[in-house]
Parts: sequence; structure tokens; C-alpha cells
Amino acid sequence: MKATANAGSNIAFVKYWGVRKDRRHRLVPLNPSLSMTLDVARTTTTVEFLAGLRQDSCTINDRPAPPDALERVRRVLDRIRALAHRKDFARIASANHFPTSAGIASSASGFAALALAASRAAGLGEKQHNLVSVAVLGSGSACRSLYGGYVLWSPPDAGGRRPSRLRQVACEDHWQLVDLVVILTRERKAVSSEQGHLLATSSPLLKGRLASLNRLLAKVKRAILHRDLPTLGKCLEADALCMHAVMMTSRPPLLYWEPATLAVLKTVQKLRVKRGLPCYFTIDAGPNIHVITTPDRATGVGRALKKAEGVREILRCPTGRGAFFVEEPLF
Amino acid sequence: MKATANAGSNIAFVKYWGVRKDRRHRLVPLNPSLSMTLDVARTTTTVEFLAGLRQDSCTINDRPAPPDALERVRRVLDRIRALAHRKDFARIASANHFPTSAGIASSASGFAALALAASRAAGLGEKQHNLVSVAVLGSGSACRSLYGGYVLWSPPDAGGRRPSRLRQVACEDHWQLVDLVVILTRERKAVSSEQGHLLATSSPLLKGRLASLNRLLAKVKRAILHRDLPTLGKCLEADALCMHAVMMTSRPPLLYWEPATLAVLKTVQKLRVKRGLPCYFTIDAGPNIHVITTPDRATGVGRALKKAEGVREILRCPTGRGAFFVEEPLF
Repeated sequence: MKATANAGSNIAFVKYWGVRKDRRHRLVPLNPSLSMTLDVARTTTTVEFLAGLRQDSCTINDRPAPPDALERVRRVLDRIRALAHRKDFARIASANHFPTSAGIASSASGFAALALAASRAAGLGEKQHNLVSVAVLGSGSACRSLYGGYVLWSPPDAGGRRPSRLRQVACEDHWQLVDLVVILTRERKAVSSEQGHLLATSSPLLKGRLASLNRLLAKVKRAILHRDLPTLGKCLEADALCMHAVMMTSRPPLLYWEPATLAVLKTVQKLRVKRGLPCYFTIDAGPNIHVITTPDRATGVGRALKKAEGVREILRCPTGRGAFFVEEPLF
Repeated sequence: MKATANAGSNIAFVKYWGVRKDRRHRLVPLNPSLSMTLDVARTTTTVEFLAGLRQDSCTINDRPAPPDALERVRRVLDRIRALAHRKDFARIASANHFPTSAGIASSASGFAALALAASRAAGLGEKQHNLVSVAVLGSGSACRSLYGGYVLWSPPDAGGRRPSRLRQVACEDHWQLVDLVVILTRERKAVSSEQGHLLATSSPLLKGRLASLNRLLAKVKRAILHRDLPTLGKCLEADALCMHAVMMTSRPPLLYWEPATLAVLKTVQKLRVKRGLPCYFTIDAGPNIHVITTPDRATGVGRALKKAEGVREILRCPTGRGAFFVEEPLF
């Protein structure tokens, strides 16, 4: 009745942006996404279902979870209870081993760990289909963190013929890269990703992006299999700019970038062109920048980035393994 | 054989980005554009055709024109000579009444003034069709500066059925606005507009923008006729972001923005939301920002913008008249 799991966050090389509602009124991404699972930026979560509890409770880093997070945790637990035909409420404790709300998707690591721990605590097996469908109720990108290395998530299609599918393109041992998370600010963003996803269809540019993704995904997969960083880097920068192009042309426009975002982005380009360093940027729905580089160059790239205007902190995350069980519970 | 003309620059509310080659291998914009002609940012140009000259010569602000500008001037003059059935070379002097290469299209005012002066100097009438076809050989947007106020330019269609068409939507007396040109840098941009236009078709987002423009143009025209600044402002910000979205997703990506560009852009949004000031941004192919506001608020808006990081100078340009002849020649 009690289980503990650990999962890493992930950084998408091909991002999903925009959602539709399926027949059950659940939000489904409009496009496949491909990410690298991260080490260091990881979360440990313990779940215990207990008879006699009057409601679900959840702490994050020893403090009660904020209402919106608790709401998402409950969505996940309700689904687990339905799958396991149980009614007990659960006690949950979660610990992020990295700064929360700092441009790293703690929701991805958190909900991947929750899905795995809660499934076992409820006596469910770890069937992929169940885990994916549970994790995405907390956060779409969380399901990609179930696997290590390089992970492709294809959401179900609109016709309902092709189900959700999670696939490991290559494991973490195939190719070790580093994600330098360049943290510019810890302020909460004005428009959350959840709200932003709903605006995507108002952009006149969305269709063009969606139509271009199959080719891009094929190229990214090939680059990963061949450990071809220049090609991968070009693709991930192009996709980050393409996603932000859609964001900034939605109505109302979403401009997640800050002046320092552009300063770091231009520093990355300069380090590459002028100093020949293998580093490439990507940007999620926020101002912070992720710089993808190789383990042997990460220290030098990090040192140079630290000097860019507006940089507060840099977190170094290698390619990480998937979600796994932990023997020691948090309570 | 000698004539002098004056023309203002213009700021596009709906911009053109991307060109195709027509059957005569001339570059034609992929979409219509609509701009406001500017006062203050104006150019005076004197043209004299003289028997006995061995080649065309041109000075800009009393210095010999740089080779690329001279090349474009010659294209214009060759067309004039062909239309007028003449062979004489010309002497040209041009004076910009504002800083050159500072985010203001001195090519627009310059080539509009050149087209008008050269046509008269060569003994041609001022037929619209001739003037437009001559001005665009120097710079596409120059033809819009032939008229004052608010001007729509529809380039010829790809099939060759609809010719180029220039139309004044409303004159400068219908509605006086102010363009505050916020100058961040005077460095020459790394990729010129000419090169950038050729890259537009490599963006997966171009088609989406082109498909959305007819509706946008209709809305902008209506807003001008009704003097509806909030609607016009929303449209011009949306179109600027949409054009830059196409630019940053071309291959290679064109990122004309600097960190200070975003800082000013966010200042404009804040002035509007927090202080209720009627001001809206637009950005051409460069880092500088144009802030459109009303004459009575221009001083306050300008003062607030001056404090934003990275702002070097602000030039205040009211809505201006079209190109006209000047009695006093420059030489």
C-alpha cells in the first residue's frame, strides 16, 4: 500500500504546443514530442493509500502542495483508483532535488514519479499504457520522463484510431549529453503553459508548424541514433524558435522571452561561431534557456554563459535514466 | 533637365516579407503592404541629366554614395532612360534630413524622391504607374512614400493579370498619428533586408502568414477610416510579431531583435496596461522599434521610453505628406 519512486525532468528537443479536447473532454496534445530525460533535476515521491483518510493530502518539499498542484495530484489519484477499483485516499510526499519553478519542469519529474509510485501503491502493475495515461493527467510532458535517454511521445490521433504511444529512441548510455539550465528568473510566468496551450489554435502559424514536424522528428531521431550534435542542435534551435513563433502570434500574443533570454541566445550563437564550442539553445514556455552541449565542453560553456547579462544560476543536468522505484520512503 | 523632389520615409503597419522573381527576373513582394508616410524623416534629391557625363554620379549628404546604393540608383536611372528614350547620364545629390541607417528606411524616402525628381528631369510625366515601377527598383517600400497619409501597395500577382497598384487609404489630414522611432543601435545589420526577403520561403510558417493577411488588411483599413487606434494598434503589433516569427523560422533563422528590443517592447505593453497610454509597437527588419501613438500623448510616451534600457535616441515623426517638387535644387 506504500511505494516510492524517483523520476527525472526532461527537456524537449521537439516540443508540443497546443491541445485539443478528446471525446472524454480530456486535453490531448496536437503533436508528438521528443525529449531527453534529465539527471540531477529529479523528484522522489512516496504514495501511501490508507483506509480511514478523509481526503488526499500532498506535501512538496515538506510544505503543503499549492491548490492547483493538489488538484492535478487528485486527478492522477482518481484515475489510479478507477483502474485499481479502490476507494482509499492517499498520503503523498514529494521532494524535488532542484529549485522548483525555475525553468525546469518539476511537474514532469513529479508526475512521472507519482504515476509510478501510486500505481504500485494501489497494487496495479506497471503497464506502459496505464502509466502514460496516469502521468499525463498531471502534466503532458511527464509521461516522457517514465523512460530514460531519448523519448518520443505520440499522443492519440483525433480520430481515436491510434492510441497514445511512448517509445525510447535511444537509452541514456547510447549518448551522454548535458543540459545546462540557464536560470534568469524565478518569477512565475504571467500565462501558464496550461492556458497557453489553449491559445495555440488562434495563431495563423500553427498549421505550418504542425505540417513541418514529421520531417523534423525524423531528422532528430536520425541525429540521435548517429550521435550527430550539429544536426540535432540545428533542429532543436529551429523547433524552439518555431514554437515561440506560434506563441507570439496567438491572440493574445504570448511573449515568454525576457531581454536576458535574447542575450543568452546570442551568447550561445557566438560561442559556437567564434569559439567553435558545440552548444545549442532551446527554450520552453518561459524565459529561461536550456543549452545542450557535450560532457567534455559543459564546464567551459557554462563558465562563458555565466558571464551573460541577467544569468542568475546554471544547473548542469546530464542525460538521465527513467523513473525507478526507491527502497527508502519519504515518510 | 534638372528637378528636385522631397519625400518622407514610411512605417509599415502591415509589412511585406518575402519576394519572388517575375518573368523578367525582377523581385516582386509576395504580399500587399500598408504604411503611414512620415514627416521629419525626409529626403531631398536633385537630379540633373547632362550630355557629356561619362557615368551616373550620386552623393548622399555630400559624400559619394556607397557602391550598393549607387548600383540601385543606376537601376532606377536606367529605367527612367528607357521610358524617356534618352541616353544621358545624370548627376544626383541627395540629403537625408535624419540619421541614415538608424532603423528608418532612408531607402524609402530616398528612392521616392529620386523617382519623382528623375522623372521630371527626364521630361517624363508623373504617371503613377511609371513612378511606382521606377521607385520599386530602388526599394520596394519606396513606392508607398509617393503618397502621403496611409498607403496600400498591392504588388502584381504571380499570374501577371493584376498589375502593381498603389492606393491612398486616407490622407495625412484624416488622422494625425506619431511614430516615435526608438533607436537602439546604428550598427548595420548582419543580414540585409534584400538577403532576408529571399530566405522567407524557407520558413514553414510563411504560408500561414500570407493566408491571414487579407483579413488583417481589411481590419487595418477599417481602423484607419474610423480612427480606431486600439484596433489599429493590436493589428500592427500582431503583424510585426508575425513577420518576425517568419524571419526567425527561416533557414538560416533571422533574429533581428536585440535584448533592448524586447525591453522596449515590454515597456510599451506596460505603458499601455499600467498607465493607460495609447502606444503600440512595430518592428522592421532590424532591432529598432517604432512606437505609434497620438500627437497629444507623444511627449509623455517618448519620455517614458527614453528610460528603457538600451535606448539611445528617439526621433518623433508625425504622419506626413507624399512626395513633392522643391524649387530650390541641392546643386
